[in-house]
Amino acid sequence: MSQKHVFFFGDGKAEGNAEMKNLLGGKGANLAEMTNLGIPVPAGFTISTEVCTYYYKHDYTYPPELEDEMKEALRKVEQVMGAIFGDAENPLLLSVRSGARVSMPGMMDTVLNLGLNDVTVQGLIKKTDNPRFAYDSYRRFVAMYGDVVLGLKPESEDDHDPFEEILDAKKRARGVQLDTDLSAEDLKELVVEFKAAIKEHTGEEFPEDPMDQLWGAVGAVFSSWRNERANVYRRLNNIPEEWGTAVNVQSMVYGNMGNDSGTGVAFTRDPATGEKVLYGEFLINAQGEDVVAGIRTPQKISHLKDIMPEVYRQFEEIANRLEQHYRQMQDMEFTIQKGRLWMLQTRAGKRTGFAAFRIAVDMVEEGLISKEEALLRVEPDQLNQLLRPVFDAEQKRQAVARGDLLTRGLNAGPGAASGLVVFNAADAVKWAQEGKDVILVRLETSPEDIKGMDAAVGILTARGGMTSHAALVGRQMGKVCVVGAGEISVDYKARQFSVNGKVVKEGEWISLDGSTGEVIKGKINTQPSEVLQVLIEKRQDSEKGVAYHTYQQMMKWADEFRRLGVRTNADQPDQAATAIAFGAQGIGLCRTEHMFFGGERIDAVREMILADDTEGRKKALAKLLPMQRSDFIGIFREMNGYPVTIRTLDPPLHEFLPHTEKEIEDLAAKMNVTVKKLHETIESLHEFNPMLGHRGCRLGVMYPEITEMQVRAILEAACEVKKDGVDVQPEIMIPLISHVNELKAQEVVVRRVAAEVFEKYGFEVEYLVGTMIEIPRAAITAAEVAEVAEFFSFGTNDLTQTTFGMSRDDSGVFLPFYVEHKILENDPFQSIDQKGVGKLMEWGVSEGRKSRPSLKVGICGEHGGEPASVEFCHRLNLDYVSCSPFRVPIARLAAAQAVLKEKN
Amino acid sequence: MSQKHVFFFGDGKAEGNAEMKNLLGGKGANLAEMTNLGIPVPAGFTISTEVCTYYYKHDYTYPPELEDEMKEALRKVEQVMGAIFGDAENPLLLSVRSGARVSMPGMMDTVLNLGLNDVTVQGLIKKTDNPRFAYDSYRRFVAMYGDVVLGLKPESEDDHDPFEEILDAKKRARGVQLDTDLSAEDLKELVVEFKAAIKEHTGEEFPEDPMDQLWGAVGAVFSSWRNERANVYRRLNNIPEEWGTAVNVQSMVYGNMGNDSGTGVAFTRDPATGEKVLYGEFLINAQGEDVVAGIRTPQKISHLKDIMPEVYRQFEEIANRLEQHYRQMQDMEFTIQKGRLWMLQTRAGKRTGFAAFRIAVDMVEEGLISKEEALLRVEPDQLNQLLRPVFDAEQKRQAVARGDLLTRGLNAGPGAASGLVVFNAADAVKWAQEGKDVILVRLETSPEDIKGMDAAVGILTARGGMTSHAALVGRQMGKVCVVGAGEISVDYKARQFSVNGKVVKEGEWISLDGSTGEVIKGKINTQPSEVLQVLIEKRQDSEKGVAYHTYQQMMKWADEFRRLGVRTNADQPDQAATAIAFGAQGIGLCRTEHMFFGGERIDAVREMILADDTEGRKKALAKLLPMQRSDFIGIFREMNGYPVTIRTLDPPLHEFLPHTEKEIEDLAAKMNVTVKKLHETIESLHEFNPMLGHRGCRLGVMYPEITEMQVRAILEAACEVKKDGVDVQPEIMIPLISHVNELKAQEVVVRRVAAEVFEKYGFEVEYLVGTMIEIPRAAITAAEVAEVAEFFSFGTNDLTQTTFGMSRDDSGVFLPFYVEHKILENDPFQSIDQKGVGKLMEWGVSEGRKSRPSLKVGICGEHGGEPASVEFCHRLNLDYVSCSPFRVPIARLAAAQAVLKEKN
Repeated sequence: MSQKHVFFFGDGKAEGNAEMKNLLGGKGANLAEMTNLGIPVPAGFTISTEVCTYYYKHDYTYPPELEDEMKEALRKVEQVMGAIFGDAENPLLLSVRSGARVSMPGMMDTVLNLGLNDVTVQGLIKKTDNPRFAYDSYRRFVAMYGDVVLGLKPESEDDHDPFEEILDAKKRARGVQLDTDLSAEDLKELVVEFKAAIKEHTGEEFPEDPMDQLWGAVGAVFSSWRNERANVYRRLNNIPEEWGTAVNVQSMVYGNMGNDSGTGVAFTRDPATGEKVLYGEFLINAQGEDVVAGIRTPQKISHLKDIMPEVYRQFEEIANRLEQHYRQMQDMEFTIQKGRLWMLQTRAGKRTGFAAFRIAVDMVEEGLISKEEALLRVEPDQLNQLLRPVFDAEQKRQAVARGDLLTRGLNAGPGAASGLVVFNAADAVKWAQEGKDVILVRLETSPEDIKGMDAAVGILTARGGMTSHAALVGRQMGKVCVVGAGEISVDYKARQFSVNGKVVKEGEWISLDGSTGEVIKGKINTQPSEVLQVLIEKRQDSEKGVAYHTYQQMMKWADEFRRLGVRTNADQPDQAATAIAFGAQGIGLCRTEHMFFGGERIDAVREMILADDTEGRKKALAKLLPMQRSDFIGIFREMNGYPVTIRTLDPPLHEFLPHTEKEIEDLAAKMNVTVKKLHETIESLHEFNPMLGHRGCRLGVMYPEITEMQVRAILEAACEVKKDGVDVQPEIMIPLISHVNELKAQEVVVRRVAAEVFEKYGFEVEYLVGTMIEIPRAAITAAEVAEVAEFFSFGTNDLTQTTFGMSRDDSGVFLPFYVEHKILENDPFQSIDQKGVGKLMEWGVSEGRKSRPSLKVGICGEHGGEPASVEFCHRLNLDYVSCSPFRVPIARLAAAQAVLKEKN
Repeated sequence: MSQKHVFFFGDGKAEGNAEMKNLLGGKGANLAEMTNLGIPVPAGFTISTEVCTYYYKHDYTYPPELEDEMKEALRKVEQVMGAIFGDAENPLLLSVRSGARVSMPGMMDTVLNLGLNDVTVQGLIKKTDNPRFAYDSYRRFVAMYGDVVLGLKPESEDDHDPFEEILDAKKRARGVQLDTDLSAEDLKELVVEFKAAIKEHTGEEFPEDPMDQLWGAVGAVFSSWRNERANVYRRLNNIPEEWGTAVNVQSMVYGNMGNDSGTGVAFTRDPATGEKVLYGEFLINAQGEDVVAGIRTPQKISHLKDIMPEVYRQFEEIANRLEQHYRQMQDMEFTIQKGRLWMLQTRAGKRTGFAAFRIAVDMVEEGLISKEEALLRVEPDQLNQLLRPVFDAEQKRQAVARGDLLTRGLNAGPGAASGLVVFNAADAVKWAQEGKDVILVRLETSPEDIKGMDAAVGILTARGGMTSHAALVGRQMGKVCVVGAGEISVDYKARQFSVNGKVVKEGEWISLDGSTGEVIKGKINTQPSEVLQVLIEKRQDSEKGVAYHTYQQMMKWADEFRRLGVRTNADQPDQAATAIAFGAQGIGLCRTEHMFFGGERIDAVREMILADDTEGRKKALAKLLPMQRSDFIGIFREMNGYPVTIRTLDPPLHEFLPHTEKEIEDLAAKMNVTVKKLHETIESLHEFNPMLGHRGCRLGVMYPEITEMQVRAILEAACEVKKDGVDVQPEIMIPLISHVNELKAQEVVVRRVAAEVFEKYGFEVEYLVGTMIEIPRAAITAAEVAEVAEFFSFGTNDLTQTTFGMSRDDSGVFLPFYVEHKILENDPFQSIDQKGVGKLMEWGVSEGRKSRPSLKVGICGEHGGEPASVEFCHRLNLDYVSCSPFRVPIARLAAAQAVLKEKN
């Protein structure tokens, strides 16, 4: 514990400074800093956070030295302010406020106007020549003190405030509506009545001695550190209880002393757009709480220039100095007392993601901060705000005001989209072909819905979490996507859904805000972001826009620092193109099974599944070969010069079979088998736990002819494009291994087919054979696995499922409960569980590289685009992360931050 | 490499001995040992296994010294046998045989009668005065040499042997049926024809020079170490290729030189029963291959006493000496040549499990071996043979002979049972109540079938593996159980099953051999084993029987050595009683959910599931409380003085709901809810992957009232029995945790309820709170978990499923393929996967004990009764294993072996 407990500030000199946030709290440190800068701050002192800790450790008592230190500081304040605490002629009045290391707005208690009593109020009257002001201040103080220090509060949330009740009675008695209609005499009576109420309800006298008042208020503020509200807030925001709060005791200044007084708040830049312009508002003849209360409409800060040009000039100069000094956009509070400007607070200002990015880039260009600082000042996830189409803000506001907000789901795919409701994939495709914007509404989506999802402008599901099929595929496609909107009840038969008593029918307009999860009835206009206009639509005219400039600069800087490569998960050439526009350096996961759906392909796939023997399967696979090959040719051309990791067939075969009786009958006719036989096949493929069933390499190991066809398609495609001069770098990835022997068995097939293909073409293509690490056993035995695998790719979706023994599809019942009740800190399907899943990854990387130092290691689970997970992957020294195209810039940024955080 | 390559034996002196198996192979070492013992062995020499290694390393050549060494050894053999190799008057004939470190019967090649040519055959005629014998030996030698050394073999398996074809032609030409009807002249012609065939087909001349013959045969034997057959056999039996084989060159002796000659095989004890009696058979005037071929019926060895009393006496004396010398039951081969006994082979004899146990115990009592040796000489799994009811062997033989063997499934629950076929649990219960023995036949079983399984004498399922529900529960109940009999097609509607064209209807008799997996039509009488007669039926008269005596001794010795505790998995008092009779030292897993089925209980459970809120659930749970309490009272009384680990509710709730429309309607009426609402509940509880869904502690965390009721039932029961003086040691086990916070949340409930119960009773009961470790993340974070858990119990069934990402229920499609194709060495659900699952266990134990040194650690998966897994648990220093009652003795034995293996 420090020797010193009390830190004075005033008249250009302070005992603290901005670096001392841990000891003085954020507010106290900044008050000291401003004072040192020569900025006019009402004098005061800060009682340190260590006193708070002492207070709780020592049964609500203070260090013995505190009293003397406080008296000494008080004396200095009196000196600077030219007033005496408790003086009958020229009383010094004080505010007593909390101030923790980080802001906890509204969580703790405050006492204003402290020092007033029946004697000093007379001094105040004399000083201000305004009895009404004096008694108004006095009655406010008594009420606040009675509440905060003496505990006279409403008994429950429904109860009235006891002081408000007395006030209301007084107004009724006087026959007036507003507080301001009460006279000085009325207010004086209220003081007496308030004191009596305190005595009656708490049994305690209101203390007339100002020193008693001060000790009471200090104790109340320290005690409020552990009130219910604050405890909950700390738990939610991971703020340690040991930090404690400081107490700031400061001379009162008044913005309500007439038309030469006022109060306001302002930002040094526009917190919504980031534009460099003083942004804020003020009220003449008002106190701070009036600005917040919103009874009177405040004026724009620029208007102050017209009313009090000198004060405005001074304020502008101070704002400028503060921003230059702190090298951060500032959020300031000020009061003008009789024409004199006092600064009451300054701190870093909250802003939108868009503003955060713009300000960071601007400040670098202004020479205020370094690129490193700029990179660290933004939240990678908020980059979305630069990329996503957005609703016309005014139209949306109006719609919500009209009551058209239907419900709120999970914001799975950011952006904004309006479209006509359809309830199945076929309709989505058909309507889209007719030129309509459609939103596909499903209970949940499955691989068969992919074409419909692709055709839709937005996807809405009633079930599923942030990594459900809809969310995963939607994000990868860059679709606006709201999932798990549990209040929605979908009636496929009636072609409508209902939610909170409202019914929306097929063909009606709805609008999805994928950034907030809002589902709104009706149409709202949207527009693509500037960044997309440049990157995707290649509109050069948009390059000069602020959003694009900001994006471009930030990405340039990110790439200068990051070590981690960033690839994308893409199954189609257009997805690959988008990802490259966003800076992807390869494909980390190309899922071949998505290519198995649609027309002739699904027929051939089903023929293969229904085949009785190897020969039958080979015949069906031969039909698929040219189609798969042409898919790969498209992707390889798009990814010229970049590696492409292709995963062999992963899902269980039953996913490719039809489910409804009608579809089964159709298929039976088409395949020329009996319905009974088809039913038997479907039944025989049924699994109790498909996630843990016959899938992944287990298919390829038992039916090597499937792997053989896929490898042939991949390498023939590679040879074809190489002939045209394309730099092709295929990486063949075997999924779901749990034992190295599975990989060995598949590698034999790959090498054999490769030799055959190269023989046929007369030249070779360099390629790698590797594996997903998505099963705990594969990670545990990584040393063995790496003897065969040339690369690892962590499939953290499945690895999380198996490490937790928790299915993504079924955890929706309990996972939200777990996160809400802090059983789990985060949804492990969103951010890598570093202690569990991460431990396996760490082990996998280090064991794998021990047996093969050149082992390339990446991650292709959805976590690859989540900033905390990206940082973790950086720390594990992975070679790359791979994520959906629209998350590529986020991953680039997070990867740069990881480097910078490591340095710090 | 040793200096010496050739090891002579003969005339009471050998250069090798029994210890030199690695160098001389098993056969060579034993021939040397017998020679040293003064036992009559035809002289010969062994070429060491190192020469084999050299041969392969040096491109099929020999060490330069070999030729001289071999000639020297041959000279000694000639001296001892009084005959000269290649001599025209008195030729020495040789056999050339392989002999690896472990026996590989029939895998490698042999050449007999080596040394014969057109010259030496005349010598043999003179010596034996038997031209027919000489030419018969000669033609056999040429054929064997042609086949083995020169490679004249049938071209495919379907082809005829070329020498057999020539022989057949000769017989046709002579108009005779049998080889023995051919004359010496015929045989002489055959020699010529055989040689011509060799020349024609291989292009090589048959070598007339005996030394050339010898080198050829030696090379052929070394080469056969790597023939296809041998390679496969080695792979299947994990025999390293580097071991190599030795070659034994030995003087020929002949048992076919007339009625004063013969040959035979014998064991020093009865290999079926273990009885100490010379057991074997012989043929007069025959060669070894005739005994094996089975054309003539051999005579019992005891009969030799009547025919050749002196030879018999001599043989008996040798057998005795060999057993005393090797301290192992011996399997011997001998030949009598003209009244003289020659020993050709001795080795440890194969025996049934029953015999193995009996012999081991007898030998200890005879002072031949130590208790430690006895314990290490038996396979714990074979202990079953002492415990299981058995079929009347003669009746079973007749049934199979009649063609009544229907099919063969997996031998999941050993023993023998006959009963009437029923197809559902209700019928099983009803028929059993009527006093009938029934066999429950199902596609597969589920928890709802438990009462039916309990009522049945045997269980037969068409699906499921060794750890399917039927196998698991069946074994635990000690039922005869055959599962996964895939050829069976069950028709519940027609109340019959069909298999291989045969139909078995409800009410017909079938018999199950759970030790072999055989399913037999009709009734076969059974009888309980002696051990069960004593332990379970408490029939003291059976205590003197061999089986019981053997069991009792072996268990006594096992308990003297083992450190690992052995508990049982038991849910009911009668199971607990059985387990205690088998030596269990507590219950390691008491599943509470099995108590949830049946009558009123299932109603209350369903009422709880259907409840809309906590209050509704609590009301339903209150009904369950007294029933659960009385269950626990029963178990605690039975387990007086032993710990009882009780697991809180584990399976997903949907397992308790009905599945058929009829049941759903009935339940809706009973519960007074609409069928629609019930359907909705069932639908809402549906899971895609129930194994990874809302189960285990996830239920208790979300619905703490369930845990509360169960803990109350457990501790109230504990208090009740403690009042009666029972020493009760409850251990409350929380299942399926993946994060320590889940355990923390449940521990709070347990401690609170405990305090309430103890308050009510006015006294306390000592109890522990612990957890299953059955999810990888729980093992990975064991250090954290052990801060809360007082004990760990590895649930290796689930841990295997999640570590492999492989569902027990669905892996039946590919797991057998994996094991068959050596992708996996073993079924990991049968024997712990030590490299993967075991690694997590190892980590869990060491991390857990780091943070809580007193941590009690056990295992309660099915692996707890599997010997290799028990040994692994011992090495991990677990406190106990827990297994089904009937595996308790096996675990005790395996635990003792683990200690002894560790010492060695």
